[in-house]
Amino acid sequence: MNRSVYQATGQAEDTSGIAKRVANISVSAIKQMPVLASKVPGCISLGQGIPFLNTPEFIREAVREALLNDPTLGQYSLQPGKPELKAEVAKRLQRTAKTGRINPETEIVITCGAMEGLAAAISSIIERGDEVIIPSPNYSSHIEQVLFAEGKPVFVPLIEDAGWKLDTDKIKSTISKKTKAIILCSPMNPTGSVFGEAELREVAKIAIDNNLYIIADEAYDFLTYDDETHFSLASLPELKDNLIATYSFSKMFCMTGWRIGYLYSSARIVSQVLKVHDAFAICAPTISQYAALVGLQNMNGKDGKGDESVNELVATLARRRDLICTRLDKLTNLFTYQKPQGAYYVFPSIVPGITSTDLSLKLLYEAKVITIPGDGFGPTGAGHIRLSFGGTDESITEGMDRIEKWAAKNL
Amino acid sequence: MNRSVYQATGQAEDTSGIAKRVANISVSAIKQMPVLASKVPGCISLGQGIPFLNTPEFIREAVREALLNDPTLGQYSLQPGKPELKAEVAKRLQRTAKTGRINPETEIVITCGAMEGLAAAISSIIERGDEVIIPSPNYSSHIEQVLFAEGKPVFVPLIEDAGWKLDTDKIKSTISKKTKAIILCSPMNPTGSVFGEAELREVAKIAIDNNLYIIADEAYDFLTYDDETHFSLASLPELKDNLIATYSFSKMFCMTGWRIGYLYSSARIVSQVLKVHDAFAICAPTISQYAALVGLQNMNGKDGKGDESVNELVATLARRRDLICTRLDKLTNLFTYQKPQGAYYVFPSIVPGITSTDLSLKLLYEAKVITIPGDGFGPTGAGHIRLSFGGTDESITEGMDRIEKWAAKNL
Repeated sequence: MNRSVYQATGQAEDTSGIAKRVANISVSAIKQMPVLASKVPGCISLGQGIPFLNTPEFIREAVREALLNDPTLGQYSLQPGKPELKAEVAKRLQRTAKTGRINPETEIVITCGAMEGLAAAISSIIERGDEVIIPSPNYSSHIEQVLFAEGKPVFVPLIEDAGWKLDTDKIKSTISKKTKAIILCSPMNPTGSVFGEAELREVAKIAIDNNLYIIADEAYDFLTYDDETHFSLASLPELKDNLIATYSFSKMFCMTGWRIGYLYSSARIVSQVLKVHDAFAICAPTISQYAALVGLQNMNGKDGKGDESVNELVATLARRRDLICTRLDKLTNLFTYQKPQGAYYVFPSIVPGITSTDLSLKLLYEAKVITIPGDGFGPTGAGHIRLSFGGTDESITEGMDRIEKWAAKNL
Repeated sequence: MNRSVYQATGQAEDTSGIAKRVANISVSAIKQMPVLASKVPGCISLGQGIPFLNTPEFIREAVREALLNDPTLGQYSLQPGKPELKAEVAKRLQRTAKTGRINPETEIVITCGAMEGLAAAISSIIERGDEVIIPSPNYSSHIEQVLFAEGKPVFVPLIEDAGWKLDTDKIKSTISKKTKAIILCSPMNPTGSVFGEAELREVAKIAIDNNLYIIADEAYDFLTYDDETHFSLASLPELKDNLIATYSFSKMFCMTGWRIGYLYSSARIVSQVLKVHDAFAICAPTISQYAALVGLQNMNGKDGKGDESVNELVATLARRRDLICTRLDKLTNLFTYQKPQGAYYVFPSIVPGITSTDLSLKLLYEAKVITIPGDGFGPTGAGHIRLSFGGTDESITEGMDRIEKWAAKNL
């Protein structure tokens, strides 16, 4: 499996003298495609997961005000994060994830996006040679983060025909003496699937029975469609010592560029994660912590604006999901797909005869549409392509028009 | 050597099942002290290196404007950083560090502060068991970053009586078959010393002769006093393939909280560092990249405001250095010290009979002054304490008043 689009385009790398943990990893295809695309004028992006809505006005206005009046905005926060933001995060998780009472001082870290939380958590618990079970196709960076920690990703295929659901029997039978953790992402990037309460409880039981950690990437916890609801593993008291859950403000408040998220775990794990956080970041950006605080304060009941902007976002994305699915329904000469139930990705299977990296590069250079090749999402991602419907209606329509034209001409 | 103040205060940690790379490290004392101090009302800080000047108004104003008009501020930038910021960074280094021509596309990464650049660089080149020479006392996080990469820090004492200068003979004789890199920080945190051109050229020659990397932490490159000037290792063309240099906007533009810096190295190393950057951060905060861009554009000649704010900062800090030194001159019952030539720290030696962690904790709880114990800065840091003069005149005066009173009562 070649996870690097750069390599597919002939960019060689010289890793002599480079530490194995880094020689073995790659920049994820999700980020390589926009870099390649920056040299191709006039592209439409169905690529990186950026909601093309601006950060809500009430957040931007509060930050503008604080930039005038609050000099602490420009200074380091306390290393684990602003105490008032940690308190609001605890409130949110108690409300939305139905956790028990959280001690924000010892059980929450504010991170530079969910990404830094995931990397710090995986670095903290995975020792060289440890196996990590990853239901796959999976978020690409989970692979790089496990390899960076010199662990071994062990992929368990999701059941595509069932709508990319967990194969809990296969997870159980894959556990070995070296297994240390299971990484779960729900709602899921890249498949758009949402795991149900029953299957998640089953995995939780497997983890407890085998003394494994579950790393739960819940960046899209607010974003489900139709009757699907997100079940948070953080709601299970019996799992508390085995769970590390990571969250993001990126999607909920359309603030991907602010690099701000958080991690929830036991005090014991948090104290370890904080060491990595210190060595890699010192603290999350204070200005972004302030922005997130404003968003959460409103959401946790102050005046409802946070909920309003989030409800609006979910409604908009539900409409865009229907838009892209309607287009995919007509593209049966190129794709078959499972309808996404959460997040803002769809992960169609490509008709035989063309690899995902080939298709993505052709769509980039010939159709001028950015997509992400499925090869980047683990071995069962091969033969698929990830399309984001986080963009505007116009960009989705134009992007799908271009793909349709390209397919008509080339297939 | 106990690098953790938390441990000295009796906070136990349970590292069972934690990866060695993380079990072995600690949150640096620089960040532990403010966390402890957040429980002690009414403290004066001579602790963390925060210049208590606001981020310059022209930068804050530009960001306020962009928050109104530019939705890309809230979105991911390209993974290696905004191209226009990388171009300005290259211009700055060509001008101030007297590098040759830099290719911003392949030789620059925009990072979440210099810290992330350092951590990513060290993780990229240090393999388990590699030795890293660190002239010491040294910036605490360099130790944690080397241990995180499972390398072995090998400390070479600085020559205190000469004003904390490099012992190049000792560096040379310390090199073994396992030595992979030397970490240099000049102007130096915590000693305030500035290494001269001749000694730096000598270390560069040692690195080239022995095929070692030099990791140059040049976060304070603009900040020297009297007739001292900073000599950048990036100016040596013969060192280019062996050098990884990291920089920060934190100090220059008083933006520690924005978490923004950059790394300069060969294209080969940059391509590896980018992988770690992707796994830990995706990209640096876009809003902070924009703020840094505005600062640099002005500094690189547009209208001189950047230089003006930096000149004002250096003049202010020179005055504060004199202020704190005048106070230290009277505190001979507690301290002897070397006058700092750069950065905004002074690192006095404590009179015998009291350890640095004891003194820092006593000053915190009895005198209500935050200082950083020298134990956090490598073995030769023991018996010293770091005082920052980045604060206001008032806080320096009040802090030194309190230390003076405490010393009069307790010594």
